[in-house]
Amino acid sequence: MAASCRLKPLSRVAVSGGTHGNEMSGIYLAKHWLRDPMELRRGSFAVTPFLGNPRAIEKCERYVGQDLNHTFTTELLSSAEAEDEPYEVGRAREINQTYGPKGSAQAFDFMFDLHNTTANMGACLIVDSEESLLPMHMCHYIQTHYKWSPCRIYLYKLPGEETYSIDSVAKAGLALELGPQPQRVVRADLFAQMRALMACALDFIELFNKGTVFPAFEIEAYKITGRMDYPRYPNGEISAMVHPKLQVGVGWE
Amino acid sequence: MAASCRLKPLSRVAVSGGTHGNEMSGIYLAKHWLRDPMELRRGSFAVTPFLGNPRAIEKCERYVGQDLNHTFTTELLSSAEAEDEPYEVGRAREINQTYGPKGSAQAFDFMFDLHNTTANMGACLIVDSEESLLPMHMCHYIQTHYKWSPCRIYLYKLPGEETYSIDSVAKAGLALELGPQPQRVVRADLFAQMRALMACALDFIELFNKGTVFPAFEIEAYKITGRMDYPRYPNGEISAMVHPKLQVGVGWE
Repeated sequence: MAASCRLKPLSRVAVSGGTHGNEMSGIYLAKHWLRDPMELRRGSFAVTPFLGNPRAIEKCERYVGQDLNHTFTTELLSSAEAEDEPYEVGRAREINQTYGPKGSAQAFDFMFDLHNTTANMGACLIVDSEESLLPMHMCHYIQTHYKWSPCRIYLYKLPGEETYSIDSVAKAGLALELGPQPQRVVRADLFAQMRALMACALDFIELFNKGTVFPAFEIEAYKITGRMDYPRYPNGEISAMVHPKLQVGVGWE
Repeated sequence: MAASCRLKPLSRVAVSGGTHGNEMSGIYLAKHWLRDPMELRRGSFAVTPFLGNPRAIEKCERYVGQDLNHTFTTELLSSAEAEDEPYEVGRAREINQTYGPKGSAQAFDFMFDLHNTTANMGACLIVDSEESLLPMHMCHYIQTHYKWSPCRIYLYKLPGEETYSIDSVAKAGLALELGPQPQRVVRADLFAQMRALMACALDFIELFNKGTVFPAFEIEAYKITGRMDYPRYPNGEISAMVHPKLQVGVGWE
């Protein structure tokens, strides 16, 4: 990063677990924190955990009507309520009202969003783009201080694209993606890793609020350069699978 | 086992992949064999692969209306067709017509049933009870010849209980359960393991048909002795998870 970090202290931080209702680490963590928020407390700011998609969590499905995490566009957030709209469109408006409105001065300072993947990729920190200075400094801090698995950084936003994810409602945000974990399954090791990552991220905010200077740094991050489909049979079915060496060898064991 | 194995040679063997529509190893294997059955061929008997629950496979769900693998009771198989019956009840009748009828002299000699689990348990061979002589000898042969992971044996039928699984339609049967694999995901290593287990089982049938004598043996098998729920919060939600040492350590690594 070319510039050091000079931004206002953060006062209100939100954490969504269960933005996808079958990704259990964040659901279990958010429910734990809703029962006992002690470990989220830091001196200089307040952390509010919440359940992103309660109806999908109840059904233990990714979503009910449409993917909540693609529903936070200005167009959908400002659309008029309709009887036949997917549940998630209404839920996105509620979240926008509570933690936003998106793009406004009233919005929360930061939002974390907790995800799992079945892919054997360890911990992945997802930020919209390298222009998001505070989240990039947070990533750097986590990479330096968190030792359980590598934390790769993924910048998801394509040039010119609008942000659409749940954390885009706040002024800044970060998504954690941990794998491998089957959908609907809780692995204690990934639960503990996500908890440790969150503690590390909150420690960073505390240090930042207290005036710690974070100097400029260089960092490696991943971006989409293109998409490649699986090979397929003439009837459209996938004819290949990921090689076991890529599936089992995770690069740091 | 107290007795050596003296039974008639087998001539017709069936293999179901996708009895549960989101357990991908067997689905991929059965589809592969339907395209190219060469590797199933042995000299002395015929092997017929089929898709257990095609509608669930299409949706990539465990089942559509009810669990197909609990639908092969005499009561359901002999029930009159009803408009509002679950899809799987009709599908069970079709399978019973093709590979049964259950308990009749016309039934197939043997049926394999291919499953996955998210549990980190390696390979598990599931037989109804230790009274099923041929499947128990097959288990013993597989345990002796298959080296990729331990093969534990699980005897599922409780005393006095009727068989209800898909392979109970044939005169004898065996289910393979391989894990860990997320639902809806194909892992190449588990795919290869299931393929090798099936090859080993078919080799056993070939040897048996050709008159090989399999002497009596002792073998370790698991049975249900009781069920224990997870600890729960007052609202009914699970308050515990499997310890990481049980989840990660699989006992043979």
